[in-house]
Amino acid sequence: MRSLILTALACTWLLSSPIHASPRSVILIVGDGFDDTHVTMGRNYLAGQSGSLLLDELSVRGAVQVETIDSEGNPLYVADSANTATSLATGAVTQIGRVGKDGNNTVVPTVLEAAAADGYKTGIVSTASVTDATPAAFAAHVAVRACESPMTIHGGKKYGVTFDGCPEDLVENGGLGSIAEQLATSQVDVILGGGEEHFTPQYGSQPSARTLATVAGVTFLSDAADLRGSHPGRVIGLFSEDTMPVKWRGSEGRTAESMKRSWLNHIYDMIGSVTQPEIIRCEANPEFAGMPSLEAMTRYAIDHLSRDNDKGFFLTIESASIDKRAHERDPCGSIGEIEQLEASLKVALVYAQEHPNTLIIVTADHGQAAQIVPDPTLYKYLPIPVYSPGKVARVATPEGGVMRINYATNNIDSEEHTGVNVPLFANAEGRTVLKPFMHQRDIYQAMMRYLELER
Amino acid sequence: MRSLILTALACTWLLSSPIHASPRSVILIVGDGFDDTHVTMGRNYLAGQSGSLLLDELSVRGAVQVETIDSEGNPLYVADSANTATSLATGAVTQIGRVGKDGNNTVVPTVLEAAAADGYKTGIVSTASVTDATPAAFAAHVAVRACESPMTIHGGKKYGVTFDGCPEDLVENGGLGSIAEQLATSQVDVILGGGEEHFTPQYGSQPSARTLATVAGVTFLSDAADLRGSHPGRVIGLFSEDTMPVKWRGSEGRTAESMKRSWLNHIYDMIGSVTQPEIIRCEANPEFAGMPSLEAMTRYAIDHLSRDNDKGFFLTIESASIDKRAHERDPCGSIGEIEQLEASLKVALVYAQEHPNTLIIVTADHGQAAQIVPDPTLYKYLPIPVYSPGKVARVATPEGGVMRINYATNNIDSEEHTGVNVPLFANAEGRTVLKPFMHQRDIYQAMMRYLELER
Repeated sequence: MRSLILTALACTWLLSSPIHASPRSVILIVGDGFDDTHVTMGRNYLAGQSGSLLLDELSVRGAVQVETIDSEGNPLYVADSANTATSLATGAVTQIGRVGKDGNNTVVPTVLEAAAADGYKTGIVSTASVTDATPAAFAAHVAVRACESPMTIHGGKKYGVTFDGCPEDLVENGGLGSIAEQLATSQVDVILGGGEEHFTPQYGSQPSARTLATVAGVTFLSDAADLRGSHPGRVIGLFSEDTMPVKWRGSEGRTAESMKRSWLNHIYDMIGSVTQPEIIRCEANPEFAGMPSLEAMTRYAIDHLSRDNDKGFFLTIESASIDKRAHERDPCGSIGEIEQLEASLKVALVYAQEHPNTLIIVTADHGQAAQIVPDPTLYKYLPIPVYSPGKVARVATPEGGVMRINYATNNIDSEEHTGVNVPLFANAEGRTVLKPFMHQRDIYQAMMRYLELER
Repeated sequence: MRSLILTALACTWLLSSPIHASPRSVILIVGDGFDDTHVTMGRNYLAGQSGSLLLDELSVRGAVQVETIDSEGNPLYVADSANTATSLATGAVTQIGRVGKDGNNTVVPTVLEAAAADGYKTGIVSTASVTDATPAAFAAHVAVRACESPMTIHGGKKYGVTFDGCPEDLVENGGLGSIAEQLATSQVDVILGGGEEHFTPQYGSQPSARTLATVAGVTFLSDAADLRGSHPGRVIGLFSEDTMPVKWRGSEGRTAESMKRSWLNHIYDMIGSVTQPEIIRCEANPEFAGMPSLEAMTRYAIDHLSRDNDKGFFLTIESASIDKRAHERDPCGSIGEIEQLEASLKVALVYAQEHPNTLIIVTADHGQAAQIVPDPTLYKYLPIPVYSPGKVARVATPEGGVMRINYATNNIDSEEHTGVNVPLFANAEGRTVLKPFMHQRDIYQAMMRYLELER
């Protein structure tokens, strides 16, 4: 009888208590282009081939299949950051270039928006412009990713290509406006990264960023030192014109290079000789001076979101330039950005240690062009010149090796993405909602479930 | 009092029982070159981009870092199948080309040998020659992988390169002999695959395969139909001269091709035009007719090893031609081989369902050259020709897409391996000995622990 009474008392207590005694939060870290090749590049350089990254110590690991469709809904096997970030943010499978909109160009609600509506605080951090596709897809909705500012939404040139803009997204046409306008007037509590130029268009009657920000009652930061303080209310920090400069670069700014081929080899590639590119050492990028690190932005964002907050938060953090430097065939740039991702993850893990109901997920949006190839070639004993038809960087590693990175997906200035499935990492909280193999849209579902949000 | 007596009885029963009531076995499936790109290629083709492979349903998944050293012990970032299979089989980190020998050219014992010594039955299955590096590393020890037969151990040509053979491994010099000799005289209970030519050297006084096999009291199989029966004692089945023909090929035998470039484009690659390769459909390879499938070999091997066996077994299965066809830039060949791997895995999973103490691990030895790239290019709106500097295959998928595979690691007839970390899959038994991130040598340790073998 006594045990029955005790059980009844315990049940009453359980039912009357809030389900979560402490705040419940999700920190989603997206390494742009951070496929297994880049994970390995980072490990080989930062920890040595026999070492491990902080990422590698996470207890949940899996793989994520990327899905993309063309305008007819047929499968495409390689994505861009817009459609993949939209899948992560909204669960929709959509077309290349779409931000927060599905294949039919319809606005789809994001996990960040659902969290905000439910009383969670929300944040976006990126080393790219905060209006770039990956961060934007969590709180903005436009048909074409290049509609970043009140100027570009009218069309123009991006990546050397003329485009029509997003007429259906213009405020005057009943749309939500450009990405910058949507972010500035959103309910996102903290937005940190690059991209000031997209908030301050230099023409006509368009509102400026500061105007946008001030109108909405936002504290506007532009200096790394600002992140040492704390500020009430909404905060937007923009620390560079567009993408933030990266932390590392190749010695003398060198990136991957073509072989130097002798005239005989130009006549027939099985004869003559080729000269390998000189070895590159990674060094600090002087342009990074004065920039806040991704670690500093992460720390500020977590502090801002967790202060006086019993409910919890949703924060997405993008380490953008793994991809951006891979497009430019710059392995040291990518590796320095991976070092930034690791430092950001460390801050998140420290927070999670003190706040148990914190799910940390690290994943990538899509694969990228880099390949680690043998140095020297596997066929070094052949009596003919063997070399990549693309461009190659030979990176000296701190442990005394030479890591040879091949970029050979196309002939122009910017490499292609690849369609490989991407890695998934999470802290132990991930066990409750993640599986070893998922599609990108499932990550959205998992985050919604973790935050107990309705679809 | 009654409960105390019951507890005591239960403890007595537990202590007097053998720890493992049923046989305890390990099935290690190695997809050669089966990196995440090939996993994704297989998924896109066999299940569709929104589908999943049988592999994807396994409850344990992780990543494995490959380690390789040069002759001075310095790190190399890209491996071959010999040194990686040696890591998996023995826990040693060694040089490219080494089979079952460490960096100092010393014989290192394998998990298969340790299992056999402890009374487990053992088996090797491969779609390559059974004397090829990956299967060989589990039961043979030579300085150079090309020392496959009593003929080649004296030196000769392999992959177009002259080599000195393995004088230190010659029986007359106190060595263990060629790989074929070691396998034929080993204690491995079942060996199935290709490679008859390595057992039947055509010169001088060397023993023939059948002689070797007969001498050792082995049942020798050479016909797929033989696998429908069962045979007592040791069995060696060799179903092709060298590597077994693969199941699929590209339509009309086509593989990746270079772009056809206009004469203007040859002058300057930003002008003129390029013609894309025609789309390839995967079809049955007529040369596969009469070959046993990897599934049939797996079924025979498991039946053979589990029959009248209370102890359990160690079986390694290689799906070899994912790698071999990637070297040849033949995505349909690789995908057909992945289909074979899946069918083999299914047989293993059915066995494990009925025999709970069966650990199934699937992993790769190293990365391979293939990349899934956009079709069309991400830069399709640029007014210039954009194309891969390497070779490209555009594979039609059953779900109606075009999967474009880029091979661009070198200019010769055979692509390079890559240094990406490789995937790790296991059934739920893997939870007891595997971690989300491991080095290849750790897989050896895990299998040894699972089989309760001493190092």
